[in-house]
Formats: sequence, C-alpha cells, structure tokens
Amino acid sequence: MDTVIVIKIGGNIIDDEGKLSSFLKLFAGVKGKKVLVHGGGKLATKLAADLGVEQQMIDGRRITDAETLKIVTMVYAGYINKNIVAKLQANGCNAIGLSGADGNLITAHKRKHATIDYGFVGDVDQVNASLLQNLLDNHMTVVAAPITQDGNGQLLNTNADTIAQEIAKALGKFYNVKLIYSFEKKGVLLDVENEDSVIPLINPVYYNELKEKQLIFAGMLPKLDNAFSALQNGVKQVIIGKAEELDQLITGKSGTTITYE
Amino acid sequence: MDTVIVIKIGGNIIDDEGKLSSFLKLFAGVKGKKVLVHGGGKLATKLAADLGVEQQMIDGRRITDAETLKIVTMVYAGYINKNIVAKLQANGCNAIGLSGADGNLITAHKRKHATIDYGFVGDVDQVNASLLQNLLDNHMTVVAAPITQDGNGQLLNTNADTIAQEIAKALGKFYNVKLIYSFEKKGVLLDVENEDSVIPLINPVYYNELKEKQLIFAGMLPKLDNAFSALQNGVKQVIIGKAEELDQLITGKSGTTITYE
Repeated sequence: MDTVIVIKIGGNIIDDEGKLSSFLKLFAGVKGKKVLVHGGGKLATKLAADLGVEQQMIDGRRITDAETLKIVTMVYAGYINKNIVAKLQANGCNAIGLSGADGNLITAHKRKHATIDYGFVGDVDQVNASLLQNLLDNHMTVVAAPITQDGNGQLLNTNADTIAQEIAKALGKFYNVKLIYSFEKKGVLLDVENEDSVIPLINPVYYNELKEKQLIFAGMLPKLDNAFSALQNGVKQVIIGKAEELDQLITGKSGTTITYE
Repeated sequence: MDTVIVIKIGGNIIDDEGKLSSFLKLFAGVKGKKVLVHGGGKLATKLAADLGVEQQMIDGRRITDAETLKIVTMVYAGYINKNIVAKLQANGCNAIGLSGADGNLITAHKRKHATIDYGFVGDVDQVNASLLQNLLDNHMTVVAAPITQDGNGQLLNTNADTIAQEIAKALGKFYNVKLIYSFEKKGVLLDVENEDSVIPLINPVYYNELKEKQLIFAGMLPKLDNAFSALQNGVKQVIIGKAEELDQLITGKSGTTITYE
C-alpha cells in the first residue's frame, strides 16, 4: 500500500503570513501522496467584525448563523484555500483546493443538540474516498477547507480537526495513512510547563498508564481519544507536533507519535 | 468525439436567487459532459461597499487593487462557487468547483498596458485540458470561478467570458465543444428594440453581409468577433441567448448559433 500523509494546520500557522509561507515550502517538498486540511484562523472573526456581524456565543460555543456561514464560506473556501493552493503551485506542488461540496467530497448533517441550536454547523456523515483516490493517484495534492454540505444544497461549517480525521479514516482503507495534527506545542508534554518534555511515542498500554498516573494535561485528553479513535478506524499513525518541524514529524524524530501497536 | 457543453452565466442570473435556482435545475438536467463558468454579479461590489473599500476606476475600467482581489477571491471562488456547487449536488449533478489555481487549471499573467495599471487582473496563458478531461471523464461537472493564478503564487482577477472561451478552446482538441454565452437578451437581434428579431444562425459569409449592411448593433461586435475567434480555435458552435432557455439553446431552437461552416 502507498502511504498518504494527511496534515491539519491550525490558526497559529494561517494567521502568520511568514509561518504559512515557510510551512507551505516544507509541505510542498514532502514526497508522495498528501492532503492538507486547514482551519480558519482569525480572518473570519476579523471580517465579521469589519462587517458588523456579531458572533453569537451560547455556553461558550460559537453559533454559525446565516451571515456567519456566508463569511466562513468566503474566508475558508475562498480566500485561505485559494491562496494556499496558489502558493503550493508556486512551490511545484500540484494542489487542488476543495470544500466538502466539491465532487461531493464530504457530506454532513446539521448538528442536532437537545438544548443548543448551533446553526449551520455540520457533523460529518461520509467522505468520498474514490474522489480523493482519483486525485491522489493523478499526482494532485488535495487542500481541504472546513466547509461541508448536507446534500440538499446547504453548506455547513465543520471543525477542521474532524475533517482531517474523517479524511484520514476514509483513506485508511486504501493507503497507509499518517495523520498529523500540528498545533502550537512540540508534542504531548509530560510537563506542560516544559517544552522539552515531549513524549515521543504513545501506544494504548502506555496511554492507560499515563492516564492512571494522571500525567496527561486534561486539555490533551480529547485530542488523544480522537487519535485512538482514528487508529481504531484504519489510520496507521497519528502524530501531534509543531508544523514548523514537519519533516521531523513525518520521520518520528519530533512530536508525539501515537500508534495502536 | 464526445460533446462537451461549456456555458457561461453572468450577473443577471447570479444576482437573482430564484433565477439562479431555476437555471441550476435546468443545467443539472443537461445530459453529458459540461462545464459551467460563472461571473461575479453585484455581490463583490456590495461587499466592497460594506467594507468601505473604494472601487477605483480608470478610463471607465475597474482596477483590481489588493483589497479588491481579496474580495473577489472570497466572493467568486468562495461564496458564489461553493453555493452553486452545493445546489448542483442537490440536483444530482456531481459538480466540482475550481479556481484557476486549483490543479493548475488556468495560468495567466498580470495585464500589461502602456498607460493603465489594471492591478491584479490576469490575461490567460494556458488552460490545463488534461485536468478537465480527467474530471469530465470521471463524470464530474466543472464549475469554474473567474480567478486565475500566475504560477508564482499570485491570484488574479480574470474576465469570465474569456475564461469560458479559453476553456472551450482547450477542450476543442478532444471534444465537440458547444460554447454557450448567456446574457439578458434572447440572442443576437436584427432590431435591438425587438426581442423577437433573433437571428437564428450566423456563419462567416452572413456575418460579413450583416456587418457591411451595418445591421448589427455595435455592442454585439466584440462578442461576435470573440465567437469567431473561438470557432477558429477548435470550438464547434458558439450559442448566444438567455440562460432561462438553456435546453432550447443547446438544440438550436432558441438563441443565435454561430458556426464556421
């Protein structure tokens, strides 16, 4: 089986033009099949403020009303996605930018919740793996924006971490998939105050040990639970670390590698 | 050779939600291989006004400065493109929305002009026909936004009529291409005041006759010259008419068909 690297970059990279350019150069240089999933960063929040569209928050969660959906569609699937694609093309990487609507890449449903109406937020139902296979096998690099569709013409705002995970799982049936989550720290830390305390490798046995001894920072638990869920669904490795160290993350020389073995 | 229909819709359709929905239903129902090219309509102008970005005009031509490029990228490649794609998907048409950067679809160069700096406006150099072939042959319908790239990471704003023409010409080597320009009138009119005076068929001999007798409204001349240029470059038919009559345009029962024979 061929290897596919699925990497998710977050706001800390997207909001910093210099960091983004350096990262895209690194990413373009990675050999083989790859998918990039990007989040939104602060640009959508800024555009909403410039347009006087108030961001509704309920219980600390952002609500995607119709105006906000329009803004995130413009910013994520338009501005950010197309600029990333153009920069990758300039670096010799044949990128193709897609939302979940394009080629029916990702269908989702409007989130159902007993008490909160999240608005136009989508939870993923299905990823079109055969479209990804076609593009990857034709030497294209997919750049996915965190916008999905419900199949009835409605676009939906979807969490980029989730999109990366669902794409990785869908590709896991056909490829050896490495899923890389980049964030602001060097990896999963034993001591949250010490950037050099990165745990290089976590498997299920060690994860249970770490949890029992309460050695893992509470904020990391959902990320790690998600990682193990991906591993249970066909993804070979999940790697968590800094986007700036992409090459070392891929080879396991940096970041935290999570495996099921 | 298979037939491909390339159709360009303009602002009169895009700005009217009801008209757009009806058109997309019609378009989704058209059998066979097809490409949709959309313009921008008034949404970008409205967003610019809402954001207080002044639209610079020089000699009656709009200038695309950096802020305007950002706006058209968001509106054309983001909002309009993704909403069209989602609505086509809902109508059972497997659409994939692309800008010129995606898969290196359209490369262009920043317009050079002796006296006017148009800003980030792109004149087309090349269309990636093999990408279009791959997608069309895999039963996808390409929806192209009028944003191109220069290959060095710069996005550019490009006229949608030109994009439709260049895509049609590039596909002309591999398919029987019909290029349909939809606009607000029923076709090329003998009497500009009379909507029922549509000329059903124009070939080069008849075109010269019409020009000599000055029977063609001056505003139509560039459109017709462009049509003949497309026909000289491998396009089989150019059809000009109302988007609302798409089925009849395709069969030649409505609009003006321009052929080289």
